[in-house]
Amino acid sequence: MPNAPQTDEGWYVLHDFRSIDWDAWRDAPERERQLAVDEGVTYLEDHEAVADADEGASAVFSVLGHKADLLVVHFRPTLDALSTAERRFEQTALAAVTEQPTSYVSVTEVSGYVSDDWFEGNKDDIDTGLRRYIEGKLKPDIPDDEYVSFYPMSKRRGEQDNWYDLSFEERAELMSGHGEVGKEYAGKIKQVIASSVGFDDHEWGVTLFSDDPAHIKDIVYEMRFDEASSRYGEFGDFYVGRRFPPSDLGAYLDG
Amino acid sequence: MPNAPQTDEGWYVLHDFRSIDWDAWRDAPERERQLAVDEGVTYLEDHEAVADADEGASAVFSVLGHKADLLVVHFRPTLDALSTAERRFEQTALAAVTEQPTSYVSVTEVSGYVSDDWFEGNKDDIDTGLRRYIEGKLKPDIPDDEYVSFYPMSKRRGEQDNWYDLSFEERAELMSGHGEVGKEYAGKIKQVIASSVGFDDHEWGVTLFSDDPAHIKDIVYEMRFDEASSRYGEFGDFYVGRRFPPSDLGAYLDG
Amino acid sequence: MPNAPQTDEGWYVLHDFRSIDWDAWRDAPERERQLAVDEGVTYLEDHEAVADADEGASAVFSVLGHKADLLVVHFRPTLDALSTAERRFEQTALAAVTEQPTSYVSVTEVSGYVSDDWFEGNKDDIDTGLRRYIEGKLKPDIPDDEYVSFYPMSKRRGEQDNWYDLSFEERAELMSGHGEVGKEYAGKIKQVIASSVGFDDHEWGVTLFSDDPAHIKDIVYEMRFDEASSRYGEFGDFYVGRRFPPSDLGAYLDG
Amino acid sequence: MPNAPQTDEGWYVLHDFRSIDWDAWRDAPERERQLAVDEGVTYLEDHEAVADADEGASAVFSVLGHKADLLVVHFRPTLDALSTAERRFEQTALAAVTEQPTSYVSVTEVSGYVSDDWFEGNKDDIDTGLRRYIEGKLKPDIPDDEYVSFYPMSKRRGEQDNWYDLSFEERAELMSGHGEVGKEYAGKIKQVIASSVGFDDHEWGVTLFSDDPAHIKDIVYEMRFDEASSRYGEFGDFYVGRRFPPSDLGAYLDG
Amino acid sequence: MPNAPQTDEGWYVLHDFRSIDWDAWRDAPERERQLAVDEGVTYLEDHEAVADADEGASAVFSVLGHKADLLVVHFRPTLDALSTAERRFEQTALAAVTEQPTSYVSVTEVSGYVSDDWFEGNKDDIDTGLRRYIEGKLKPDIPDDEYVSFYPMSKRRGEQDNWYDLSFEERAELMSGHGEVGKEYAGKIKQVIASSVGFDDHEWGVTLFSDDPAHIKDIVYEMRFDEASSRYGEFGDFYVGRRFPPSDLGAYLDG
Repeated sequence: MPNAPQTDEGWYVLHDFRSIDWDAWRDAPERERQLAVDEGVTYLEDHEAVADADEGASAVFSVLGHKADLLVVHFRPTLDALSTAERRFEQTALAAVTEQPTSYVSVTEVSGYVSDDWFEGNKDDIDTGLRRYIEGKLKPDIPDDEYVSFYPMSKRRGEQDNWYDLSFEERAELMSGHGEVGKEYAGKIKQVIASSVGFDDHEWGVTLFSDDPAHIKDIVYEMRFDEASSRYGEFGDFYVGRRFPPSDLGAYLDG
Repeated sequence: MPNAPQTDEGWYVLHDFRSIDWDAWRDAPERERQLAVDEGVTYLEDHEAVADADEGASAVFSVLGHKADLLVVHFRPTLDALSTAERRFEQTALAAVTEQPTSYVSVTEVSGYVSDDWFEGNKDDIDTGLRRYIEGKLKPDIPDDEYVSFYPMSKRRGEQDNWYDLSFEERAELMSGHGEVGKEYAGKIKQVIASSVGFDDHEWGVTLFSDDPAHIKDIVYEMRFDEASSRYGEFGDFYVGRRFPPSDLGAYLDG
Repeated sequence: MPNAPQTDEGWYVLHDFRSIDWDAWRDAPERERQLAVDEGVTYLEDHEAVADADEGASAVFSVLGHKADLLVVHFRPTLDALSTAERRFEQTALAAVTEQPTSYVSVTEVSGYVSDDWFEGNKDDIDTGLRRYIEGKLKPDIPDDEYVSFYPMSKRRGEQDNWYDLSFEERAELMSGHGEVGKEYAGKIKQVIASSVGFDDHEWGVTLFSDDPAHIKDIVYEMRFDEASSRYGEFGDFYVGRRFPPSDLGAYLDG
Repeated sequence: MPNAPQTDEGWYVLHDFRSIDWDAWRDAPERERQLAVDEGVTYLEDHEAVADADEGASAVFSVLGHKADLLVVHFRPTLDALSTAERRFEQTALAAVTEQPTSYVSVTEVSGYVSDDWFEGNKDDIDTGLRRYIEGKLKPDIPDDEYVSFYPMSKRRGEQDNWYDLSFEERAELMSGHGEVGKEYAGKIKQVIASSVGFDDHEWGVTLFSDDPAHIKDIVYEMRFDEASSRYGEFGDFYVGRRFPPSDLGAYLDG
Repeated sequence: MPNAPQTDEGWYVLHDFRSIDWDAWRDAPERERQLAVDEGVTYLEDHEAVADADEGASAVFSVLGHKADLLVVHFRPTLDALSTAERRFEQTALAAVTEQPTSYVSVTEVSGYVSDDWFEGNKDDIDTGLRRYIEGKLKPDIPDDEYVSFYPMSKRRGEQDNWYDLSFEERAELMSGHGEVGKEYAGKIKQVIASSVGFDDHEWGVTLFSDDPAHIKDIVYEMRFDEASSRYGEFGDFYVGRRFPPSDLGAYLDG
């Protein structure tokens, strides 16, 4: 049996997608609309300030197209905190004009493909740069005012191309080549990789941030030619949007 | 024709997933909310106490994400008792604020892959340790206050990788290797395997319990590299949540 | 081109699945509930008595899980009689508290795989035992008080495993092996096979009856190792339930 | 690159499926029901009389099972006339008690597989019999009082069995064998083949008519053994029903 | 790792599909219908005039069948402008009688397959004809009064036929052959290709325009025999319709 890579986990993640019920929004009296905006802004600001937990991060994004209108991303130290955040939203007047068409549950992860040192040595001896790099992956910041792309993915278990049949060394080499493409986009793209094995329908959730949506297209397209993706990647639905400050919620809803 | 393994069945199982209709919940007057909580708690407590049958077990779990909010699991000696439990729920005031987005029907099972002795000898001569192990699989306890992961699965019948074309010996060896991975998680993970062949859309339902969701991710990920999964496993949707005592239902609904 | 087997058709079949709209049921005043039960019982009793046609059979089953609550099966000499039975249901007060989530249309069939004699000789010269066997397949009885499993299936047309590319002799041999497994379950399982080629989304609908649901699991599981299934069977969704007398409808709805 | 066959197009086709909203029908006052029937009959009679275009044909069919209750088929010289027919239906009181669960858009077609002469010579020199045959395919009659089966299909582009990789000659030979099966059903089955390439989700829509539904089953089953289907056919959902005169609409709705 | 082609991006594109809620339309009082038409016409005219941005293009199309009734296409320099256009629609009275069943997000693109010169030289030295050709692809006009076909597509990553495993030269040659077919339809078909990699569920969205829907069928069918499609194309759903001037919206809704 091929070896699974070692992994360390950081924050749990909920991608909570919401659709505006525009009929309800249009029909609501001004007072209800204002309440929806007020409670929505308070909810989002409290969660961005992580008022509900010791640490974590949250952000709200607009989403294009029919699949959703809003994406609220929560990073928290426990699944329980995510469950609370999801249910608290339902207690707001904003929830009355939204539905939850989809969502994704995962946990940030670093693996032995990324760094042998992290797993093999004494973690106190680890180089500061590497430590910060790893901690940035386990407890990521969410950049302001940037475009976002989210998609779930799995590794193929085809009858010929079967990722889980490859040796650790083969997989590590493929992941390393994959990482090389990522490095070309340093400064242009920030990515968060989180495992959903045992939690949700694909194996990972990928969240990309950039100040230019064309960079998002370019990195995903270029990586598609990389063997780790071309032969072994299987992708779910893609969502694209842009972060906005909670205080802009009213303007967003007013078109 | 390759031999099917011998099997023994224990309790029938219903995984009854429920979504809260949050709009109905928010709009309900306080009196109706209280009634929903009271009747919900009574239903759940009566079923956890197995007041409706000679033996069995039930539990309620919160579920993360859009696919469901609650999971009620019932183990009972007959399909009829499951049918009654499912319909009784609909008679409660809690049902008025829930929908049933999905469910799963199965029966706990031990097979000849697990133990030759159980099937081949006189069951009265069976070693006490083995007997308890087998009975624990057929009539499982549900651990308190732990995280749960549920997913249905089937064995692949691909044009090259076809589980049902393998000889009994090949399958037994693959299952044995699979079991070895499981043993590494003894004390961390409790699993219930139940057959849904002829009853539901996949061939088995797998329910994992642990006090740390990272253990759930780790065992599913590690097993994915095992040939029984990597070449022969096909997985349905995954659900993750946490058990709570029925008396916490009101707090759950209030966010 | 490989030869298609000869076939004879018997009764047309409608598997009419219904979900209870439990919110409507709970909210209905007692008078309306009573009317729903009364008209439902009358509809079911009239159809079980085949008051609407020269011959046929009907029965009602409870169904477990979210996919349906009731299954009404109708066998009739014509598609027209099935269409009438389906629409008559909609005229009852019971229909007001149900929806129709799915259904299946087929026709009972015997084929040249089962019996050369039936197709090759003069049917008047056929042995009485065989005649009864064939007629039991074309015009089946529905056993009282038994568990039911229904699933649609097709034969695979894969790029390597292609049923329709096999010669008649190869297919007949595979079907014969498949029949051998069936014979082991004589007295435990009664099965009805009906073709839906040109009528519905799979090629056949299979209905199994037994007084023990474990027999249903066992026969489907054992047959899955048979080459006719392991290499050539493709299965749709599975439904499991239990027959009840129409007079129990009120008790069923009351939980 | 293999040659595409030459094609000629005839009438555009809309298969407009409708489900009865039985709850709305039952709840409607008698006056509204009568209006729904009256306006429905007028709509159907006007369209069967092709009062809206220079030429064409329309018909209404009952449909079995949950996928639809009615199928209205329109053949018209332009897509615009189909669009108008579809929207005119929505202006009737019948539309208030129906929904449109599915539909299919296509155009009747003859291809170079069917007749070289038609495409290669001067069309004025064409034999009258062939001309009538071709024109019957491009501008088909809809037979009275017959059963109908509709299904969409595509040609497989598999990694081994790839229709579009075959030479014209190979495809022509396969289509010719396919046609031979069809000829055995002359007088029993009338078929309309219409291309939906670029218009709808499969490549063709097939509509079969017969006075005996068993003939429909038989031809589809027999053709499935023909290589053009067994290796290269991919089928969508199947719908089965029966034509009725518009004046029977009220009786249909009354069960 | 095979090289990804160089790409340049032009306008972002939203295909915004809308279904008419015909029940709401029929039930609306005349005053509300008129308001829906007035605000709908104003919205469409303002967007066709690109009153909301420096540059771009918009158009409205009728759509046949159940998948949608209207398609509003917006080309704009930024994703933000598309997001605003999508939300502005929801502020109109027309939105009250529509739903949004689907949509597609992409960006117009030219790639190194199409023109080496564009990417390799100094863009100021580029031949005027080529420059206009490229700019027509990046900032396309929408032809008046023509039929439209839209479909999303991806390149296959099969275990044998894997586009992303081919060398740049192989892909360029296949794309060139594909382009040859396109040239045969010069003057008959105008096509817009836009990348949705990282933005939506397929890799490209294709929009075809023609004054004859048979040309649309012909080009898609003929291209299907081209190796770039036959072995490497994977297609999503197809939508067909026709452009109309915003002032015809009322006539459209009145059937």
